[in-house]
Amino acid sequence: MIQLRLVKPSLLAPNVFSNFSPKPGTGFFLPPLIAKCKPKSQMSSYSTSSSSSSKLLFRQLFEKESSTYTYLLADISQPDRPALLIDPVDKTVDRDLNVIKELGLKLVYAMNTHVHADHVTGTGLIKSKVPGVKSIISKESGSKADLHVEHGDKVSFGDLFLEVRATPGHTLGCVTYVTGDGPDQPQPRMAFTGDALLIRGCGRTDFQGGSSTQLYKSVHSQIFTLPKDTLLYPAHDYRGFTVSTVGEEMQYNPRLTKDEETFKSIMENLNLSYPKMMDVAVPANMVCGMQDLHSKA
Amino acid sequence: MIQLRLVKPSLLAPNVFSNFSPKPGTGFFLPPLIAKCKPKSQMSSYSTSSSSSSKLLFRQLFEKESSTYTYLLADISQPDRPALLIDPVDKTVDRDLNVIKELGLKLVYAMNTHVHADHVTGTGLIKSKVPGVKSIISKESGSKADLHVEHGDKVSFGDLFLEVRATPGHTLGCVTYVTGDGPDQPQPRMAFTGDALLIRGCGRTDFQGGSSTQLYKSVHSQIFTLPKDTLLYPAHDYRGFTVSTVGEEMQYNPRLTKDEETFKSIMENLNLSYPKMMDVAVPANMVCGMQDLHSKA
Repeated sequence: MIQLRLVKPSLLAPNVFSNFSPKPGTGFFLPPLIAKCKPKSQMSSYSTSSSSSSKLLFRQLFEKESSTYTYLLADISQPDRPALLIDPVDKTVDRDLNVIKELGLKLVYAMNTHVHADHVTGTGLIKSKVPGVKSIISKESGSKADLHVEHGDKVSFGDLFLEVRATPGHTLGCVTYVTGDGPDQPQPRMAFTGDALLIRGCGRTDFQGGSSTQLYKSVHSQIFTLPKDTLLYPAHDYRGFTVSTVGEEMQYNPRLTKDEETFKSIMENLNLSYPKMMDVAVPANMVCGMQDLHSKA
Repeated sequence: MIQLRLVKPSLLAPNVFSNFSPKPGTGFFLPPLIAKCKPKSQMSSYSTSSSSSSKLLFRQLFEKESSTYTYLLADISQPDRPALLIDPVDKTVDRDLNVIKELGLKLVYAMNTHVHADHVTGTGLIKSKVPGVKSIISKESGSKADLHVEHGDKVSFGDLFLEVRATPGHTLGCVTYVTGDGPDQPQPRMAFTGDALLIRGCGRTDFQGGSSTQLYKSVHSQIFTLPKDTLLYPAHDYRGFTVSTVGEEMQYNPRLTKDEETFKSIMENLNLSYPKMMDVAVPANMVCGMQDLHSKA
């Protein structure tokens, strides 16, 4: 039988011991760890790491091949639990729809932050499998979709909403979706930045109408002006990070903390290879993943 | 110049339109979406998806090759911001230590849920790079570590703590670390289940003292007895899921929702291949990743 016990004091160095709490009623008391008087970290005001709202259900989903994050958001305070997906990938549509079904959600929107060059969007497949779902992309993208959004629009699902911020530069039509600012909305806010701002990085600016000047302005005017504790959820991460904050990227992003000229120089000298999926993905994504469905029709 | 605007009503089908909120002051009103009277989902009581605490900083980190999740937790209400890592991987130690530094945290513990067979733990490397960090693993694991924990122990960091629950079955020494139950502790609770319980799955039980009978009992007695909204963070996911809840797994786990006999039969007929990393990883992990450091000493 497993018995409750404390870690034996004899096993512990003094500074470790004080970090273990005794169980109530064990009759002995340990002095609290006396912290050294270090200057308070600059990160303390914006290093939260999850957003809370009694209404929001949130899931981050990963597609390994293209290192893409898909985000599921729903208002579970509503009887029909309306949900949306940001940046779904064609290869993981069945996974996403299955978890939506299991969680009892009603998928309303399948949205993209931009026309992706590295994977085919799942929106077309989703629309073929779930009647009534509307695809959303920015008007500036030039891509087909059921609904086109522009800077300042709101995309509502139940009592919650996403604010659309135009953040061009990686592509001409990139947008960032930001959770609402209001009493019922998640706190801290959450920004789905697509490829405009990645964790300690950013999307390339050498194709699809990209512009390093524009990207620099987009991030500084539309993302870095958000509260510092705003959680940043990018479309990709290649090193295993899942989230960052505005404060962190303002302090540690190796590209976007630089002045504009240095940033432009960095972006112009990346010498990246041509994206292997680009010739398949971009044409498909320009019709929001409806290419096979159109050709089969 | 980008102008604020609303999605044009003419672009939207009626049921979509009502899901878009007009901007305040635009002078027109849209009736709210009238939800169909569906039965309220069974998931509504336990489908939250993030935990909130003003003290907790939490990060989920992914190692792609072994599909391992490493978890960073810290109490940022304390001046020295004490932190711990659960299941660090040797290959991503530099990434983890860098983010700890950037976030202004003081790493106190490097912990394992069990002796992993698929990757080498990062604890040894961490100890060599950050003096003072203590490695933690269960006593039942038989592995070397600075501190050994058993069922019922508490591992404290600042005002927060993790409760140790013995969940053997994948290996003899598997434990689940669960955030504390108390007014200052994160709500909902968070359980770091290692390989005992995976999202819609579980760890294999055919080596390292594994036992399907024991695993079934562990999950049902130690994890499924937690509140249904408890967030489950496993050591691995191979399909891109990042989190689940006790309620979800009680309802949808394809193995652990079965009766014990069926579960045993499933586990005995998985016909899995020998883990390719096992002969390297297990000996290294039995000394908590200190193998190279010992041989170099």
